Amino acid sequence: MKISIIGTAITKFGELWSLSLEDLFKQASLEAVESAELDLADVDAIFVANMGAGAFEGQMHLGALVASHFPHHPPAMRIEGACASGGLALLAAQDALLTGRYQTVLVVGAEKMTDVSSAEATKVLAGAAHINNEYGSTFPSLYALLARQHQQTYGTTRKQLSVVSVKNHRHALDNPYAQFHKEFTLEQVNQSQLVADPLRLLDCSPLSDGAAAVVLTTKNNGGRAPLLTGRGHGMDTLTLADRDSLTSLTATKRAAKQALSDANRQITDFPVVEVHDCFTIAELLALEDLGIFDPGEAGPASVDGQTTYGGKVVVNPSGGLKASGHPVGATGIKQVAYLARLIMEGKFELALAHNVGGSGATAVVHIIEAS
Amino acid sequence: MKISIIGTAITKFGELWSLSLEDLFKQASLEAVESAELDLADVDAIFVANMGAGAFEGQMHLGALVASHFPHHPPAMRIEGACASGGLALLAAQDALLTGRYQTVLVVGAEKMTDVSSAEATKVLAGAAHINNEYGSTFPSLYALLARQHQQTYGTTRKQLSVVSVKNHRHALDNPYAQFHKEFTLEQVNQSQLVADPLRLLDCSPLSDGAAAVVLTTKNNGGRAPLLTGRGHGMDTLTLADRDSLTSLTATKRAAKQALSDANRQITDFPVVEVHDCFTIAELLALEDLGIFDPGEAGPASVDGQTTYGGKVVVNPSGGLKASGHPVGATGIKQVAYLARLIMEGKFELALAHNVGGSGATAVVHIIEAS
Repeated sequence: MKISIIGTAITKFGELWSLSLEDLFKQASLEAVESAELDLADVDAIFVANMGAGAFEGQMHLGALVASHFPHHPPAMRIEGACASGGLALLAAQDALLTGRYQTVLVVGAEKMTDVSSAEATKVLAGAAHINNEYGSTFPSLYALLARQHQQTYGTTRKQLSVVSVKNHRHALDNPYAQFHKEFTLEQVNQSQLVADPLRLLDCSPLSDGAAAVVLTTKNNGGRAPLLTGRGHGMDTLTLADRDSLTSLTATKRAAKQALSDANRQITDFPVVEVHDCFTIAELLALEDLGIFDPGEAGPASVDGQTTYGGKVVVNPSGGLKASGHPVGATGIKQVAYLARLIMEGKFELALAHNVGGSGATAVVHIIEAS
Repeated sequence: MKISIIGTAITKFGELWSLSLEDLFKQASLEAVESAELDLADVDAIFVANMGAGAFEGQMHLGALVASHFPHHPPAMRIEGACASGGLALLAAQDALLTGRYQTVLVVGAEKMTDVSSAEATKVLAGAAHINNEYGSTFPSLYALLARQHQQTYGTTRKQLSVVSVKNHRHALDNPYAQFHKEFTLEQVNQSQLVADPLRLLDCSPLSDGAAAVVLTTKNNGGRAPLLTGRGHGMDTLTLADRDSLTSLTATKRAAKQALSDANRQITDFPVVEVHDCFTIAELLALEDLGIFDPGEAGPASVDGQTTYGGKVVVNPSGGLKASGHPVGATGIKQVAYLARLIMEGKFELALAHNVGGSGATAVVHIIEAS
């Protein structure tokens, strides 16, 4: 049974003070259904991705919140797995389609993070880690530990981290929905404020509001819509201190293996990937764990221009989390929606999306192909 | 493809101050796997149900939290739909099984509600309603509106509400995991403190800590384990004021119709049901919306003894949410686990579980049969 991506929507990402969480969900949902050239009543079920609305604004029961905007109130549920909520909702949606119970489903993710102070948002996000074992840790500090270990093991340099940020900010200029349309120089990244050594402000993805949605169907798509041909779901311990390694994310390796096997593809086949660069070090880890580069080689390859147009693989054409923004529940869905659009536009034939929860306890990989 | 319930676990429900949310999840998970006579490594995936941990204690990413207690860290995700989170997690788990990707999955729900003040817990629970459209409403007040309308339309009496509470407290004496092992008289319910007119303290389910789990498999179960033969998922508007009716829950009707059709059963076939009696009025609504009694007839039938042993159908043999307790994320799973045990013990051959989210925006119905 083939699953096609027949509709996509991505709202503007950024500090969207005039839009509520519900506005964002509604906008992305309706746009995605419209882009699929369907009526709202054609949606058999809805899968909603969100991490923190319960903590940010006290709103839960988000499946019902979104279904309320559909005249027939289709079955809906919310999926959460921290920053991998979007990827996980896509998995649950595909499961539902593959049972044959539903033929067309909406997957929509949104997060509204800028209505609270940065300190408060940082605390909410810390709920993606183990709140007792990692008490008081912020996400920059957890990823700083991973960066430090990577530096010690592989000699990863400041420049290798900075080029990731520079490249993703440059890519974001092509993405009309990106939070930032601003280029930075290596020097500017190098000298940006230290957040958690070695990570600096311009190593970190921002706090963002935004939503993204896709409409998936098992019906005949007329041979035009991109297909979801592989998917993988890998896990690791929630607590960083319990991991086997701090220089790679086992969850990514497991998810990638499963997705590639599903799609009967090699990682070398992919001309383009969206990876979960919540911090610059996370992009290097992703590229190594996906097998695109050998351990310790993603940094040098990035400096060498191998992760942008004209190189080995275009990494984060949307600008990634770093420059496109990271409204948590939307991110995993936005990656797939953005890649599906690039394929629809004929720019690529094959793409991979990589979405991570927390410091790597959850990873989801999807493969998208032209039909 | 048949789905069997090969393992069950229900922790003690109550004010469990010595146990954390993680303790509750771990205890139920390990007990369920042990009761299935499996090793932890036999669990292919985990579906976690919880409503409020993000707001109660700041812990999200609960799939990873639970998977961390399994040596092989199986794929895991959290499902949320307010008080229907448990029922929804069961649905997602069955979808995953029906794709053939997994053969044995754990579904575990837990909630830890008594570490905060009742006022704070009431506010968290209000996140199951529409926080803007129903700003400041507590759940007792929303169900009081439903009760008032039912009284006006059908002449539902104080006594008809009270007998639900008396009966469920009596049933709970049979349930070793129940939060309350205490009988009440009609007079005591009638005179308990007014919470939201006409609902009194003894009309309301309590704040509870607790967990429940089931292990589901598509493998041959040896002909002993009960089967999940029907499931339904119905929705309605999140906002009560937008509903077509305030004397019945459309979501329950839709979910019941689908589940009965799946299982090829009539509602009159069922000798026992667990229904979502978050308030006494909710049990009457459930019995009418499931079609067990005509509209307005559930109250008189309850007074007439038709909802307990020796009557038409045994309703809430566990004591229901009212007396067994209502740790939100656990409830929908506990209903199925409890009924599966009654079937395993040979007390019944066929049972129905009915789980509701919020004031009825989500409803999930499951049918369980002896194999």
